[in-house]
Amino acid sequence: MDGSGFGKAFHITTFGESHGKGIGVVIQGCPPGIAMNEAAVQAALDRRKPGQGITGTKRKEPDKARFLSGIFDGKTTGTPITIFIENRDARSKSYDAIARLFRPGHGDYSYQKKYGIRDYRGGGRSSARETAARVAAGAVAQLILDRENIRVTSFTLAIGGIRAKDTRQLERKEANGLQCPDPDAVRAMEERIEQVKGQGDSLGGIVQIIAENVPPGLGDPVFDKLDADLAKALMGIGAVKAVEIGAGIDAAQKTGFENNDQIFPDGFETNHSGGILAGISNGEDIVARVHVKPIPSISKEQETIDMDGNPAKISTRGRHDISAIPRINKVCEAMTAIVIADHLLRQRMIDPGPAR
Amino acid sequence: MDGSGFGKAFHITTFGESHGKGIGVVIQGCPPGIAMNEAAVQAALDRRKPGQGITGTKRKEPDKARFLSGIFDGKTTGTPITIFIENRDARSKSYDAIARLFRPGHGDYSYQKKYGIRDYRGGGRSSARETAARVAAGAVAQLILDRENIRVTSFTLAIGGIRAKDTRQLERKEANGLQCPDPDAVRAMEERIEQVKGQGDSLGGIVQIIAENVPPGLGDPVFDKLDADLAKALMGIGAVKAVEIGAGIDAAQKTGFENNDQIFPDGFETNHSGGILAGISNGEDIVARVHVKPIPSISKEQETIDMDGNPAKISTRGRHDISAIPRINKVCEAMTAIVIADHLLRQRMIDPGPAR
Amino acid sequence: MDGSGFGKAFHITTFGESHGKGIGVVIQGCPPGIAMNEAAVQAALDRRKPGQGITGTKRKEPDKARFLSGIFDGKTTGTPITIFIENRDARSKSYDAIARLFRPGHGDYSYQKKYGIRDYRGGGRSSARETAARVAAGAVAQLILDRENIRVTSFTLAIGGIRAKDTRQLERKEANGLQCPDPDAVRAMEERIEQVKGQGDSLGGIVQIIAENVPPGLGDPVFDKLDADLAKALMGIGAVKAVEIGAGIDAAQKTGFENNDQIFPDGFETNHSGGILAGISNGEDIVARVHVKPIPSISKEQETIDMDGNPAKISTRGRHDISAIPRINKVCEAMTAIVIADHLLRQRMIDPGPAR
Amino acid sequence: MDGSGFGKAFHITTFGESHGKGIGVVIQGCPPGIAMNEAAVQAALDRRKPGQGITGTKRKEPDKARFLSGIFDGKTTGTPITIFIENRDARSKSYDAIARLFRPGHGDYSYQKKYGIRDYRGGGRSSARETAARVAAGAVAQLILDRENIRVTSFTLAIGGIRAKDTRQLERKEANGLQCPDPDAVRAMEERIEQVKGQGDSLGGIVQIIAENVPPGLGDPVFDKLDADLAKALMGIGAVKAVEIGAGIDAAQKTGFENNDQIFPDGFETNHSGGILAGISNGEDIVARVHVKPIPSISKEQETIDMDGNPAKISTRGRHDISAIPRINKVCEAMTAIVIADHLLRQRMIDPGPAR
Repeated sequence: MDGSGFGKAFHITTFGESHGKGIGVVIQGCPPGIAMNEAAVQAALDRRKPGQGITGTKRKEPDKARFLSGIFDGKTTGTPITIFIENRDARSKSYDAIARLFRPGHGDYSYQKKYGIRDYRGGGRSSARETAARVAAGAVAQLILDRENIRVTSFTLAIGGIRAKDTRQLERKEANGLQCPDPDAVRAMEERIEQVKGQGDSLGGIVQIIAENVPPGLGDPVFDKLDADLAKALMGIGAVKAVEIGAGIDAAQKTGFENNDQIFPDGFETNHSGGILAGISNGEDIVARVHVKPIPSISKEQETIDMDGNPAKISTRGRHDISAIPRINKVCEAMTAIVIADHLLRQRMIDPGPAR
Repeated sequence: MDGSGFGKAFHITTFGESHGKGIGVVIQGCPPGIAMNEAAVQAALDRRKPGQGITGTKRKEPDKARFLSGIFDGKTTGTPITIFIENRDARSKSYDAIARLFRPGHGDYSYQKKYGIRDYRGGGRSSARETAARVAAGAVAQLILDRENIRVTSFTLAIGGIRAKDTRQLERKEANGLQCPDPDAVRAMEERIEQVKGQGDSLGGIVQIIAENVPPGLGDPVFDKLDADLAKALMGIGAVKAVEIGAGIDAAQKTGFENNDQIFPDGFETNHSGGILAGISNGEDIVARVHVKPIPSISKEQETIDMDGNPAKISTRGRHDISAIPRINKVCEAMTAIVIADHLLRQRMIDPGPAR
Repeated sequence: MDGSGFGKAFHITTFGESHGKGIGVVIQGCPPGIAMNEAAVQAALDRRKPGQGITGTKRKEPDKARFLSGIFDGKTTGTPITIFIENRDARSKSYDAIARLFRPGHGDYSYQKKYGIRDYRGGGRSSARETAARVAAGAVAQLILDRENIRVTSFTLAIGGIRAKDTRQLERKEANGLQCPDPDAVRAMEERIEQVKGQGDSLGGIVQIIAENVPPGLGDPVFDKLDADLAKALMGIGAVKAVEIGAGIDAAQKTGFENNDQIFPDGFETNHSGGILAGISNGEDIVARVHVKPIPSISKEQETIDMDGNPAKISTRGRHDISAIPRINKVCEAMTAIVIADHLLRQRMIDPGPAR
Repeated sequence: MDGSGFGKAFHITTFGESHGKGIGVVIQGCPPGIAMNEAAVQAALDRRKPGQGITGTKRKEPDKARFLSGIFDGKTTGTPITIFIENRDARSKSYDAIARLFRPGHGDYSYQKKYGIRDYRGGGRSSARETAARVAAGAVAQLILDRENIRVTSFTLAIGGIRAKDTRQLERKEANGLQCPDPDAVRAMEERIEQVKGQGDSLGGIVQIIAENVPPGLGDPVFDKLDADLAKALMGIGAVKAVEIGAGIDAAQKTGFENNDQIFPDGFETNHSGGILAGISNGEDIVARVHVKPIPSISKEQETIDMDGNPAKISTRGRHDISAIPRINKVCEAMTAIVIADHLLRQRMIDPGPAR
């Protein structure tokens, strides 16, 4: 079954494991004739790659994208685009000690129950490394969005319980390694990170995603709502435990009058809906937030069992991030771009728009 | 495109509008030979139907399920099961006044932008009435889950910002019309509801869903994660603006050590994961929460525009609920049952289990 | 699983059995704003319905289409269109004698092996009656094709081994009940039919389908070739045992030079390709032929076994056609229209065409 | 859209072009724990590869399969299996002369009309080389069939109008390069091939496929009939212009009594149905035939137009086969194995069978 596939009109299939030959993606449905900016795809991978910043793992992966199909003469051909990223720095040996133990907070146990077989060297398909394939696909999706001037961005709203207050100047997120636009919050976050790192522990946080200039009319009114597809896309990223759209959890506390976005001739007064009404974009910014759990791999000793069910202690000493943030931001952007590109192409069947 | 379809192994397609002939569902993938308990399906519809309780609309619909296909001799045949529910009490006249206005908080505007045509008499496919089809399908899904003793339930955790504190005795939710197990919270909620009703306004809330006895191994490790499919299923319900799994938004504030569920020979110590690790069930209870926005149809006057873009005032005087809760609870249960049945059947292809 | 579904962009789902409440179809992906010509759908059903002509069954079904969803103000809304056709004249009693026998040439045996349960009163989902749902869906597909002036037609090329020779004046097929344009062949066919009817036996034949004015560019170059999808669509009609495209079986006997369609500035010299090259339409007429086996229900006595494996004699005395032709012609046209509408909408995502 | 994907439970996605980096396939749905016989996959590719026998092209491709994902410790993991085959001997230069001409009988014209862009160096996705990916996937599918002792084979029934008469001893097909079991026919075929080769022309033929030991119950009664899926799978192979199941085109000439397979306690008397009744396998051998057009690339001069519509002469001097047979035989076997594996896994959801 197409369980590693996502999207209907713009359809991606990822494959590969963190400790196999590499990871890759097949992209179907990308229209022909788009100048394939291979550098843009590589740049997206570079922004996601491990070994960066204060929260990052020491694993160094060049993450070099190889285009295996679908490009001719510098343009997309309309046929499947395949991108493959070889694994280089996969030190499998470091996993031998835990080969027969189930790491708490990881998929080891449930994976074993599902398949009866498991590549214990790094989570197999559940590895965060799989997300490199999504980022590559997201960069291709973004090329489609570029034609409509749709821009997808994200920023770090919170880490370890510390929440950014001033998020008005989003470009300030580039001034620090945490992708957070509030310099005061960044300082507090950095302190918290150093403290937790010293304890062999890890942190979670919140990422906000914004898609600007999305035309109204994208999304389906029933199951394939734009927000439902976004929820699946974002909840399907490893560490995500909650997804909000627009006002999200706050909406549940408001009255209808407070929550409804009043409509004026020049647009909606507020954007509690997060740019989506009844599953269909309304022309306002698409706004989503994901709540990311802390990285489960910690060096602090934990209780677990081995494959025979015997009690055991475990301390994960691999080269791991202290937080999925800010690397996960790029994955959130990628999945959002993929969902919007998918619905943009779907809408073409209803409303072809201007001839291109 | 199959945008009104949901699920891969257990696949449902809903159709119909709130003010057309009726609404229905085609269910594909239900195994043959299951005693079709038509009364169970009808009972599920009865529990969802409008006109009940303090939050409910005055619209009275008998919601009588007619089985159009897929049943023979009181058993499922393995072929598509179709259930149709006729509309009876659709007073279209009451909508004439707002035919050319976009109701704030509703899909009117985005729907019009998508299709260029819109049945203004009640939201078309976006109507909450469509969820009756989901509830019917959920009751069929539950018959599959019954064979494995899987039980899906839900309760009201909050309404209008008032949150239940004591949720240990879930059966107490049946003692009141709000499906909330905490009698103290119920009293406060009822007061709040009466107050807001007097103001011509509406309320949102939080619903928690629990699936017990789900075997480990359900779900796919990448896009079709069990939690990702749940997120899509639940976010795809009209008024839902946020979905949490397990510890959810709290997980983002914890450290890895606090959040990881330690594993012991007799099971997981805690269930912050909400029964799902790396997208695959781990044998613990599946726990999800949805945050529901207040009903957008309110009699309080609001600002809007008409189809020509002129400013207008609107006051929705139809027969509407004050809150989607507790009717939405049954829809959440139904969608959860559908997702689990889908993955249960999918897992059969990997692990056939005991011959039946 | 969506096994009763067909098509990707234009997606239909059929449901129902010959001896249940009725049969129906849900159509997804039909663009909004198309004037829904209900009479056109009914007319298509009328042309297919049993009880017509020399080859037909005596079963009389009014086959009245009821539109359950997706239409508003005489136009399609872009949401699922559901059409339901009630069963009226299903005399189940006449099947009691064969309830426990497997009819040779029918799906009784394989159906029982698959599901372990079987509605013996008429083939369940395998009944030719299910094709009424396809004809209704085909009529809706044709409304989409009408906007591009695409015309799908068919005629009877052979019955019982008697082959039409002169097929130049297709309109002459309307002058007889066999839908064959060659009056000489018709006379011979009619004689053959009377002879076989007297022997309690039945006949097969060949139907040719032509789609005119199909724009070039429809179809996908790999699995979803236009001819591959046509082959699935046509082979999926009950009695069809072979499908040819263009020169078909003759192509296998020619040399490359003989078979290749030479290209000139004003078009292709010949149309051996049947309008499809590498799975993609080339602007010539789409031409397909189906070879239809004789109706398996015959009154002549046959050998079979009962459900316990004991030998038995069987003679099917129901009200059956002597040949699936010419009723099957309308089903072939419908399935062809559905395939072309599907690929027409898919091509919109690549090449939006003129704004509508 | 997933147009390069095929199958529902066992799902393959192919990618790549004849003159790009290579071609590959992602296989989803292969159950875990199957010993991955990489040599078996390589052997299947070796049997298909160009440069073999009297009908073959001179293009030499080592066709070395690289396994990029889904295997661990010599076993399938249940996650996507990716196989990549690099292009080595792609002499693009030899195509420069025809870069702006449409080759008769090829997809050049329709491909250009579809995408507006075209890799003229060898058909892009339409190249026969893409079928190497299918053969690799078919070898994996066969590993699943092996567990049920299902065997898929094929033989050459005709080439250039010369038809094998004695096909009783299928193993004799291995004694010659044409995969035909009738030595007399082989001699005549070889003569015909030499003759046509001398004329710069090419030949087509007929291939018969047989699947033995397929359990009853596979296939769906409506659109996803086993024969409908086979028809799509086989018609989707480049040069195929007709597909027959069982008695096929002969069935259309018989009476019902002649064509029906009488049932006895020890099985069906004949197998005109080709092992499929009402779309569902009945336990008899699955039998299909494909009619293959002659290779369109011939050195004989032909009429065509260039991309500006001007008349031109063309003579394809690449290294091409004289006939798709017998290389296509292996592709037919592969696609048949894929269809049966798909329906075998689908049936598990209905009837789990013996625990494995």
